[in-house]
Amino acid sequence: MDRLIHHDARILTLASDGRGPRRGNAMRGLGVIERGYIVSERGRIAAIGAGDAPPLAGTRRDMRGRVVMPAFVDCHTHALHAGERYGETAKRLAGVPYLEILAAGGGIMSTVRATREAMRGASAGAGLRDELDARLDAMRRAGTLAVEVKSGYGLDRDTELAMLDTIHAAARRRTEGGTGFVTPTFLGAHAIDGDEDRFCAHIVDEVLPEAVRRFGAIPCDAYCEKGAWSPAWTRRLFERAKALGCPLRVHVDQFNELGFLDTALELGARSVDHLEATSRDALVRVAKSPTTAVLLPGCGLTLDGRYANGRALVDAGASVAIATNCNPGSSPLVSMPLVIALAARFCGLNHEEAIVAATYNAACVLGLERETGSLEVGKRAHLVELPTRDERALAYEWGAAAPSAVFDGSTLWPVEGL
Amino acid sequence: MDRLIHHDARILTLASDGRGPRRGNAMRGLGVIERGYIVSERGRIAAIGAGDAPPLAGTRRDMRGRVVMPAFVDCHTHALHAGERYGETAKRLAGVPYLEILAAGGGIMSTVRATREAMRGASAGAGLRDELDARLDAMRRAGTLAVEVKSGYGLDRDTELAMLDTIHAAARRRTEGGTGFVTPTFLGAHAIDGDEDRFCAHIVDEVLPEAVRRFGAIPCDAYCEKGAWSPAWTRRLFERAKALGCPLRVHVDQFNELGFLDTALELGARSVDHLEATSRDALVRVAKSPTTAVLLPGCGLTLDGRYANGRALVDAGASVAIATNCNPGSSPLVSMPLVIALAARFCGLNHEEAIVAATYNAACVLGLERETGSLEVGKRAHLVELPTRDERALAYEWGAAAPSAVFDGSTLWPVEGL
Repeated sequence: MDRLIHHDARILTLASDGRGPRRGNAMRGLGVIERGYIVSERGRIAAIGAGDAPPLAGTRRDMRGRVVMPAFVDCHTHALHAGERYGETAKRLAGVPYLEILAAGGGIMSTVRATREAMRGASAGAGLRDELDARLDAMRRAGTLAVEVKSGYGLDRDTELAMLDTIHAAARRRTEGGTGFVTPTFLGAHAIDGDEDRFCAHIVDEVLPEAVRRFGAIPCDAYCEKGAWSPAWTRRLFERAKALGCPLRVHVDQFNELGFLDTALELGARSVDHLEATSRDALVRVAKSPTTAVLLPGCGLTLDGRYANGRALVDAGASVAIATNCNPGSSPLVSMPLVIALAARFCGLNHEEAIVAATYNAACVLGLERETGSLEVGKRAHLVELPTRDERALAYEWGAAAPSAVFDGSTLWPVEGL
Repeated sequence: MDRLIHHDARILTLASDGRGPRRGNAMRGLGVIERGYIVSERGRIAAIGAGDAPPLAGTRRDMRGRVVMPAFVDCHTHALHAGERYGETAKRLAGVPYLEILAAGGGIMSTVRATREAMRGASAGAGLRDELDARLDAMRRAGTLAVEVKSGYGLDRDTELAMLDTIHAAARRRTEGGTGFVTPTFLGAHAIDGDEDRFCAHIVDEVLPEAVRRFGAIPCDAYCEKGAWSPAWTRRLFERAKALGCPLRVHVDQFNELGFLDTALELGARSVDHLEATSRDALVRVAKSPTTAVLLPGCGLTLDGRYANGRALVDAGASVAIATNCNPGSSPLVSMPLVIALAARFCGLNHEEAIVAATYNAACVLGLERETGSLEVGKRAHLVELPTRDERALAYEWGAAAPSAVFDGSTLWPVEGL
């Protein structure tokens, strides 16, 4: 599509000062243009403003009664995985605790086994690639065009590298066409497979350096939790990763506050994710740091009703992002509109903070804020249309305001057929 | 579409014995055909079976790797309403209790004011009609083709009758085309507007009889709760409605167990809806009655985390249905797949029970079980396709298994464009 002109729209530009993620009170303010236009050309925003659209040739979209806003950015997912865990879910709902299922070889390790098998099969991962594409398509249907995808269901060297290969291939298919972003994160430290010291040393000393050789200084993540990576081993991993130039991210304080959060802040982690079990004082320390807190309320909905205190974080001046945490066990969901509603209902964010957390701030976590996450001239024309003039519907209804169309800079994907 | 042939499908027929809603253990069993076909002709199911589809002319749908099942039935909604209550929701999330908002003229009464205004405006309800159609379309997108819609935001005689008119007109548009069902319920007893005795007597003695004169013996519902209709007035209403031949349904024990549940069972109510506050003993009495329990887990998600104990009901032998309770305040949602997942996560139903509760049993609540709610020869060809072969995804993921296509007997509505 050469030129697309949205006119008579309520526009949420999310325009920001460009100096990193928004923090505290600055997380309010959606940059509203009550009645305006956006001109998209060759995949980028060519013009945006209030009042009548310029009389240009192109496809015109009359947006009266509707909102146009940036496409969502999902900055924490495990969207590449094989198999399902429904049997385990049924067991959990019948009362077996998650950490007990984990200890019995369920949870992450059951997905690891399925993923290894899929990667080693005759099709060499083609099925997995198709599953990832199907999930990225489902995410696009819900309005998300930039997605971080972690490795971490391989754990051994070959399967971890094969996962990163698959994520990179998906990134090439989407990014090179300008139609979306997929960014990889190395999560070899997702669980412990076998003897702790032997296994962790293997990830730190062999798999991580090889991943960096092959894929550059991609972000390095770890699941620091009882039964997973200890604070001591996570620190060793992160010191090595930092020396290699990798941005640091960490799953921390999901169930237990093990004390690693301060180490992550000290090492300058780009994000600390989860924080369900974090004490008030520690949340204030996050707020005083440059690190962004990534809240994942799908886990509370799915597992145990425990949610990170987003209100306390924002009130203390933190930068907050939100994400689906898309995975087959603890957060089986793909929809950022659902995450926005969960963050409003359970994490204490208001609708403006939740929308900023799902767009601009999430783009900052992925280092994509110059390309997406807000509607500004020169940035990608990645945007969604809502079937309402009131964006509060995103936060205060359950799915009713899911996008009615998604534009990826090249194709307009309408939901209007149904 | 003259003839549609689904082949190589995993089919959930939901075929039942035709003797009313399924109860207790009989709520398990989805009537699975592992690999089969369905032939739809002129809006009805002409053939269904295992193995290869007959070599008939028509549109053929290859369902390998996918499920075909009955379209959902939403048996409890307030889908006809004006306005929104986002400001009130934000207030509630900041800590103000729902009953306090109700007492301050918020809640139901704020929607009543907006609905009256919309009905009396220059357009005489055209805007409301369009809003209802938009919600019914959104429900269809999520796979629902039979929807109960209540009055109850008018409360005065003229606006109640105008609401029923609007619901009837929507029913005619959908039902006569064979493309869906809309069924009306009289809910003049939704709140108290002004002096209790005067108001309740007006509803019982004037509005109800007039509604029955105009629309026949449609179901009569009431909201029996502190601040709404008392047990004494609800009994007077129900005795009158029963004498007029109306099936009885009641919102009961949502926040407070006022003792009306046993009256409803004694009067032979078709359904008792909500039951979040019902004691164990009373749940057993529901189970021993012919009345169906309708669970509405959207309220717990939206309001207060309290859910009806579906597990106890089914274990005691009850018949259970589930519904969205679509309304702008306490349950702003339209998706039955979301309700299935909520019922599995929070009400203790397993995936089979939740699916039966969302299809066949819900059709029984609406008296539509001869037409829809299961896939059997002669019934309407109202069906959905899932993008998976594993229907457990409906219960154990959040929206990932939303229908990829919906067939209403006339038009196949795909979501595949996006």
